[in-house]
Amino acid sequence: MKADQGLPFLQQIKNVARYEDGKVIILDRRVYPARVEFVVCEDYNAIADAIARMVTQSLGPWVASAYGMVNAARRAKQMKKMAAINELRHAAHVLSHARPTTSQGMKQSITHILDFALDSLGKTDDLEACVLDHVEKTLEDRYNRNRIIGTYTASLLPDPAVIMTQCYAETLIGFTLLVSLEQKKKISLICPETRPYLQGARLTASVAVDLGIPVTVITDNMPAYVLSQGRVNAFVCAADVITLDGYVVNKVGTFQIALAAHYHKVPFYATRDPSINNPTIASVHIEERDPEETLHAMGIRTAKEGVKGYYPAFDITPPHLVSAVVTTKGIFSPYDLKGNFSENVEEDA
Amino acid sequence: MKADQGLPFLQQIKNVARYEDGKVIILDRRVYPARVEFVVCEDYNAIADAIARMVTQSLGPWVASAYGMVNAARRAKQMKKMAAINELRHAAHVLSHARPTTSQGMKQSITHILDFALDSLGKTDDLEACVLDHVEKTLEDRYNRNRIIGTYTASLLPDPAVIMTQCYAETLIGFTLLVSLEQKKKISLICPETRPYLQGARLTASVAVDLGIPVTVITDNMPAYVLSQGRVNAFVCAADVITLDGYVVNKVGTFQIALAAHYHKVPFYATRDPSINNPTIASVHIEERDPEETLHAMGIRTAKEGVKGYYPAFDITPPHLVSAVVTTKGIFSPYDLKGNFSENVEEDA
Repeated sequence: MKADQGLPFLQQIKNVARYEDGKVIILDRRVYPARVEFVVCEDYNAIADAIARMVTQSLGPWVASAYGMVNAARRAKQMKKMAAINELRHAAHVLSHARPTTSQGMKQSITHILDFALDSLGKTDDLEACVLDHVEKTLEDRYNRNRIIGTYTASLLPDPAVIMTQCYAETLIGFTLLVSLEQKKKISLICPETRPYLQGARLTASVAVDLGIPVTVITDNMPAYVLSQGRVNAFVCAADVITLDGYVVNKVGTFQIALAAHYHKVPFYATRDPSINNPTIASVHIEERDPEETLHAMGIRTAKEGVKGYYPAFDITPPHLVSAVVTTKGIFSPYDLKGNFSENVEEDA
Repeated sequence: MKADQGLPFLQQIKNVARYEDGKVIILDRRVYPARVEFVVCEDYNAIADAIARMVTQSLGPWVASAYGMVNAARRAKQMKKMAAINELRHAAHVLSHARPTTSQGMKQSITHILDFALDSLGKTDDLEACVLDHVEKTLEDRYNRNRIIGTYTASLLPDPAVIMTQCYAETLIGFTLLVSLEQKKKISLICPETRPYLQGARLTASVAVDLGIPVTVITDNMPAYVLSQGRVNAFVCAADVITLDGYVVNKVGTFQIALAAHYHKVPFYATRDPSINNPTIASVHIEERDPEETLHAMGIRTAKEGVKGYYPAFDITPPHLVSAVVTTKGIFSPYDLKGNFSENVEEDA
């Protein structure tokens, strides 16, 4: 894909997920960078299952579920019209509900592909090829929009800049780094490791190394102390959900880093895909994952028998701790989203 | 030892460290509870080395270094007077400098044992037995004083109480739990795991299980979210150092939990051994440990080659985030320490 040119390994769409002869092949981010392994999904049910099991996250489920709709189109093209409609609708439902904190944006993305596929029924000889072409154009467009967000985010950073991140911010933080490098800015990263899955240590830090950007990994109890040292210029993350009333929903830990950043007068910039349009924080359900995860590290049990775990996957940062929300339309105060973005509508899709 | 009666495994002094025929035998807390292993130290140099390598922490270095002075007395008793004095003084120096953030309190504890040993030279036939007897009385006294602190701390807790901890608070939090149980208070714990050594998951949670107290382990990025749910009544930790100007120096992560607790109006109680008397925060040096530790979990590398680590072992919580300091003399505002405790003097030893 054209959008992959010049991107580091993890950020090339083909290394997020790719479509090969009906199958969707997803990089297993749970074991990267120790091992480069792909999970092969035979159909959209297997894709939803892989998303639920955290084989991929961040932009990963968007890419994998888009290809999941191509898989549904492949199955539908051999069916009669009503069965085909049902098959496509069922796939969209299964893929939209793989994880409970799935954003409205991702649901909309799947719905758009569904609408395109339903509209194409009977108008094309090869529904699969037709939907695949549409999906790849959509993904290419998505990457181009992320580059715009990265360009706006880079404009907020001083030179030199030390950036603290959280979890894996996929192409959003990736393009911020790429654009900063193109602008010859001297950037370095401090990545909290992001337990229990360690996406900060394993994914974000790997992208930085691949781009030649100096990167330091700390454990999740260290951000406030590091911020107190005055070396960090900005805390930047790509939020899973931002609501129109200005709340940032992102990987658990974001809230306490935002609190510490605010205390130390370090700005917090949340990047935001324009299609994420949950109206209010009340509409967001915080996913709880398997509690056993917090009792294990790298697959090894840490605590004694009898100890319980608890794993809320996300947390909520209120607008007064958010310095700016960066979108394809520009940089906004979290209090100005309602006036500039409309509910449940992709404003520039 | 009498003070061990009724205490759970980890909190019995003999399972912290013990003295056997010249050797000091220290529980290896780096691998507990997965394995119950002891490190056998032949002399005080080996003890200082074990402390530096984190075989034991919290109260552990106090106990191990006290027995280290008994080892020095054993060696000294076969020497001429001047050589014996030098041997004892050298041992006290080595043990006091095993780790850079060692509190004034621990240094004072070692100095007291040194003074006792120097004073006993020529007055006893068996310097080793004489110093051992003194050390065991000192440790017994220490445990009794910790019970007093635990009683004051328990008096601050509602019934039922959900307590958030950080790292391993040894006998201080242990006695708070014991006294609360004696008072039939319904207590439960939420323990952040405390990376990279996982003392919260491995040590504090084990003590709770041994005492029959419900305990939940979360990862270090979750405290603020858990505090936002309104279930936690107090954040309690036993500080490594509290300065007379009211700063709490404790395991890295304490500061950001204190920030989140303050934001959610949850009180933060720091328990304090009365002998910890660093005069001002300027006198405290924050130890940095091997950066490789933040790039590994349970001995397995997490990040790609080329990623750097950074491991500050402690952080600093300013007095305005501390609700109360609990000591053997009672419960104090962090702003009242200077008036009630004198510089570099054990106020009630």
